[in-house]
Parts: sequence; C-alpha cells; structure tokens
Amino acid sequence: MEKNEKVIVDPWGKELVQDYTRLIKEFGMKAFDASIFPHPNLQMRRGVNFGGQDLDLIAKAINDAKPFYCLTGIMPSSEKIHLGTETVIQNVKYFQDMGAKTYVLIADVESQATRQVPIEEGKRRALEFHIPAYIALGLDAKKTNFYFQSENKAVSNLAAVCAQKVTENEFRAIYGSVHPAKVISAFTQMADILHPQLGEPMPGVIPVGIDQAPHIRMARDIARRLHTEYGFFAPSAIYHKYTSALDGSFKMSKSSDEIGKVEIPENDPKALEKKINKAFTGGRVTKEEQRAKGGQPEICVVFEYCQNHFIKDDNTLKNMFEECKGGKNLCGECKAKYGLPYAKKFFEEFNEKFMNAKKEVAKMNIGKE
Amino acid sequence: MEKNEKVIVDPWGKELVQDYTRLIKEFGMKAFDASIFPHPNLQMRRGVNFGGQDLDLIAKAINDAKPFYCLTGIMPSSEKIHLGTETVIQNVKYFQDMGAKTYVLIADVESQATRQVPIEEGKRRALEFHIPAYIALGLDAKKTNFYFQSENKAVSNLAAVCAQKVTENEFRAIYGSVHPAKVISAFTQMADILHPQLGEPMPGVIPVGIDQAPHIRMARDIARRLHTEYGFFAPSAIYHKYTSALDGSFKMSKSSDEIGKVEIPENDPKALEKKINKAFTGGRVTKEEQRAKGGQPEICVVFEYCQNHFIKDDNTLKNMFEECKGGKNLCGECKAKYGLPYAKKFFEEFNEKFMNAKKEVAKMNIGKE
Repeated sequence: MEKNEKVIVDPWGKELVQDYTRLIKEFGMKAFDASIFPHPNLQMRRGVNFGGQDLDLIAKAINDAKPFYCLTGIMPSSEKIHLGTETVIQNVKYFQDMGAKTYVLIADVESQATRQVPIEEGKRRALEFHIPAYIALGLDAKKTNFYFQSENKAVSNLAAVCAQKVTENEFRAIYGSVHPAKVISAFTQMADILHPQLGEPMPGVIPVGIDQAPHIRMARDIARRLHTEYGFFAPSAIYHKYTSALDGSFKMSKSSDEIGKVEIPENDPKALEKKINKAFTGGRVTKEEQRAKGGQPEICVVFEYCQNHFIKDDNTLKNMFEECKGGKNLCGECKAKYGLPYAKKFFEEFNEKFMNAKKEVAKMNIGKE
Repeated sequence: MEKNEKVIVDPWGKELVQDYTRLIKEFGMKAFDASIFPHPNLQMRRGVNFGGQDLDLIAKAINDAKPFYCLTGIMPSSEKIHLGTETVIQNVKYFQDMGAKTYVLIADVESQATRQVPIEEGKRRALEFHIPAYIALGLDAKKTNFYFQSENKAVSNLAAVCAQKVTENEFRAIYGSVHPAKVISAFTQMADILHPQLGEPMPGVIPVGIDQAPHIRMARDIARRLHTEYGFFAPSAIYHKYTSALDGSFKMSKSSDEIGKVEIPENDPKALEKKINKAFTGGRVTKEEQRAKGGQPEICVVFEYCQNHFIKDDNTLKNMFEECKGGKNLCGECKAKYGLPYAKKFFEEFNEKFMNAKKEVAKMNIGKE
C-alpha cells in the first residue's frame, strides 16, 4: 500500500512523529534515559519510551527498594484494545516487576457519563474482557489492584479536594474549555492518579501517551498544592510514542476505522494476514531500487509493530532490520518471514493467556465488596 | 435595640423582605397556596412558605397516596444550626408525615473540600450533633434515610451523568463562574436531589430558601434533559422566607456574627434571655405612642421567631399579635410574657429531645456498611 499522503502531511501528526525532541522541551519533560533503570524492558531498550518527568525518583525507589506505585486505566467502552495499549501494559508490568504497587482503574463512571455505557455493562465488559486482557498482556492478577471508579469512594472524595486547587482559567488553559462534564472527568482522573498516596505519600509513575500530558501537568500542580496538607509527591510520568495506524498515519486509536488498525484480540488469522499484507511499509518504488538501496524500516509500520510488540527477541529484530536495510528482503518477503509469523504468534499467545486469565478473573472478587 | 439602618437599607435584602411577589415572578415560581395540602403545618398556615414549583404534583401524590420523596441536607461544618434550619425541618417533617420517602444528605465531601473539615470529623459532627438535632426537631429516625455524600456511590456516579447535560455558559449564567470546585459541588448537589428517582422515578420536593433557587432551576433543567433516559420528574420546590437576624437585618446565617443570631442548641438560658432582650422589635419611639398606636409585629424579630418557631399554638400567637397591635403590651412586657418563656420552652424541649435522639442515633447504623 502506498503511503497516504493526506494523512501523513497532517502537520501536527507529522511534527509529533518527527520531532519528539520538540515535545520534550515544550511539555517540560526530560528525554528518556533507559540507563537509570535496572533491566530495562523492550519499550525502554527500543526507544518506544521517549520522555518522562521525575523518573529519577522512580529509579531511586526501585534501587532503594522503597514503596512507589504505578497506575493506569481502562475505559470499558468497547471489547477491543489497540496495540498502543500493549505498550502501556508492558511499562506497567515493568514497574510491577520492579516492586510498584499497581493500580488499574476501570473508568466505568466516565464511560457511563460520556459514552452512555451503563455502569453494570461497563463492569461486565471490564470483568469479561479488559481485566483478563491486561493480565494476558503481562500483569500479575494477584499483585494488581483493579478497581471501579463507581466503587471507589476515596477517589470521588479526593476529586472534590483537588478541584479546590485549580482556578477556572488554569483549567481552561489546560483543557481548552470548562465544560462541566470535562471538569468532573478531569478531577476524577486527578484523584485516580493521586489517591494511592492517601495516608502513605510515595512516588508514583503513570505511563502515558503524549495526549495525556495535560492531565499529568495538572496532577503534578495539584500534588504540589496539596503537599502541605497531604504530603503528596508530584506523580512521575513515562511517555511512549504513538502506535501508527496500518496506513502509516499517525495514531492508532479506538476511533480509527476498523481496517486501519490492529486490535487485540484478533481471532481471525485471515483478517490479520490481510491487514499485515495491506500495511504501509518503507518499500521502494521498484524491486530493483529496493534490492539496491534497501528498505526503510524507520517508516515501516510492520517493522514498528514487530519492534514495539510482536518480536520480543532483540537478535531476531536486528536480523529483520538488517535484512531490510541490506535489500535482502522485499517487503512481501519480509512480511512472510517476520511480520506475519510473529504477529500470529503474538495473537495466539495472547489468546491462550487470555482464556486462562478469564478463568482466573472469574474466581477473583474484583469490585465485589 | 434600634433597627440597624445600615443593614436594613441593603437594597437586595430590603426588596427580598418586602417583595416576595417579585421574587415569585422572577424565579418562575407560583405563590404558595396552603389550601392544596391536607393538614397544612405551621410554616404553611402562617405564610412562612411563600412560593413553590410544581407543588401540585406533591399534593396530588399525597392525596393519591402515591410515592414521592423529600430531601434536605446537612453541612457538618460547625456544631450549631440556626433557626432557619428549623423551618426547613418542619417542612421536611410535614412531608414525611404525609408519606414522603425522606432523605437527609450529609455534605461531608463538600465540607472537606470547601471548609477543610476532614471527612471523619464531618461524620463525627453529623452523628453526634446534626442528625440527633434533626430528629429532635421532628424527623422520624426510623423513616429518614440519612446518608453521607462520601459513602453514596449512586450520587457521585450520577453527578458525572448530570454534568453532561449542562453547558459551560449555562453553568456560568446560573452560578456566576465555572470554578472547578463550584462545578463539582453543584453537580454533587444535582445528583443528591435526583438520585432518589434512580430506578423508580417519582415526584420529589425540596424545601429551600430563595438562595437555593439556582440549584433548583438547574436540577429541574437536568431532570427534563435526562427524562428520556432516566424518566426523572423535575423536582418540586417549596420556598420559605428567610429568618431575620436579631437586629432585624435580613438573613440569619452561619456566617452572621454570634451575637446577631439565635442558634440551636442554646444551653445557656442567660445568654438566650440577653439575646431576646436585645432583639429588634416593632416598638414605637415612646411608651405613650405605643399604647396609643400599638406595636408593629410585622417587623418585630421576636414576633417572627414566635410565629415561625417558638409558639406552636395558633391562639397563643394570635393573642401575642393582638395584644401588641392593641397597645396592651410594651415590648418589654411582651418579651416577658411571650418571647422569653416560649423561647425557653422551645430550647428546653429541644434539649430533652436532643439527648434522647443522641442515644437513638448511637444505636443506629448510619454510614456503617
């Protein structure tokens, strides 16, 4: 498939892809430095994480074996997650393995308010799909505190406290408007982020995409303003790059159309094959040119997926990269050798773990008081 | 004591006192008509209630013995309530006696967020003072659903839904600003008001002072906008006149200074006597003038308190009024005959009931899940 020029020239998208450096500066982050962390994970080693705030606090907590936490969320609006979520979970898993108290909120209140998913339906989806999926992607069911916003009184109570600490104009500057629904949603998120520190202030790390930077900024401001009263640490953040859509356009999101994205789960190997085969690559215009100059894995969606998700072994990935660069494989050959088999393996392994996780979750008492 | 001219000429205050008719029109209410209710209470008979919205729905529910509810709230920021609250409770008690499902929310979340009262301290105050006080003032402990905002998940969840239905500009028009804390507080109140209808839509009545009219207006708008989805009735409201401060100035509120108000409880009879003796009356400049023209109970704070709170028997109140109008009693004489003894009786009865209610509440499981 040819690169979709219309999408790629979207200036915001293009700049984001090409210039994470600018973002780092603009959002007051530091460039990500994997060397501060013991046993960096795949996302860290391969540059998927590009920036962070106060990550040295987290590295120090890990090295000193001091308490810290990691938090992420689930929006139970559909029973699919996209590949970008896998990036988040790998980061959460890393911090969990390093000793973080791990929280996964289920945004059933927000899902009801903004997407008309009744609370009970949101819970069902979370219990039957999202929570098992997160476990299948690597979280330890026993060590993860999954909670429902609708059940967590500490969060709704803290939201009211957080809202005292932000003015109308500050809110507007960060979020663009002060629509009441946005206010409630934002402060619920603020309280989600900060509530693990209630009673026991500690550093915490939130793995997010750059679109979540405004939330992080506000959470950090609020934490500072509540420091005297609550002793809160400003939460740390680790930022990962976006996952491209199949056509090479910028962000794979739940709102992209079906054909443009690879989602988890994918139970139809034929559909998966079709998607990988149609995916945008860094191939040259002619076979001859590709043999001569080599491909461009830097802009190839299939390589990106393999690098960020499908191929866990560094040597295998290196071979894929070098064979492309050296002109050894045309794109079709590369897909047949790497893209397709590793994608299939990824989804097969996911499916197997997912079935087991479903059984495990069914036995747990998540959300039952 | 002479009327405090500075306070009384406050134009807004003056207009409110003198022109409830204008208010009724401006806020889209109907003038209160006691005749639609069976066995009207003291507040209804004596004109303390001056306006309402959709009260015919409530009268109909009473007459048809259909379900309806009544709701009021407690702000546990101090361990005192003022006389105006007694007016509210008499109205709540009336509707409770007429069959209303009765809800009393304890605004512990708001009290924490806006007045830095920790949730646990707010609970303690409510359990040790406000709830027993409300029972002492007439509510039936067994028939009243006292609940803590901090414990009520249905309320915080519904708040997020309500917030979807109001725009930023609408909110600003009603509340003057869109400060995030105001947003959270307002929608928590909206959800408090509407949540008794979750699952079983029914008319409900909220007894309030005119300062609460903006909340009622928004609650009614939201109820209409959620009608298709939730079947909500727009809540009805019954409005009562403000209680004057001791100097005859407009509103007795928690923020008035100590000396300017009569509060519940009042355990010091001497202090009570002092307050009643200093209270603004409708007395004439000279004894002779008063004997000749009679007093002006219409502007007398002592008469107001007796009418609205202290004297329950209509004939006794009538005698107080006529003896004043006829010039029979000078103000001091009237205070000695009516104001003081009935005030003392009111507080003595309250104290006795309050001690019993404290014991009753201690045995209940309010807020314990």
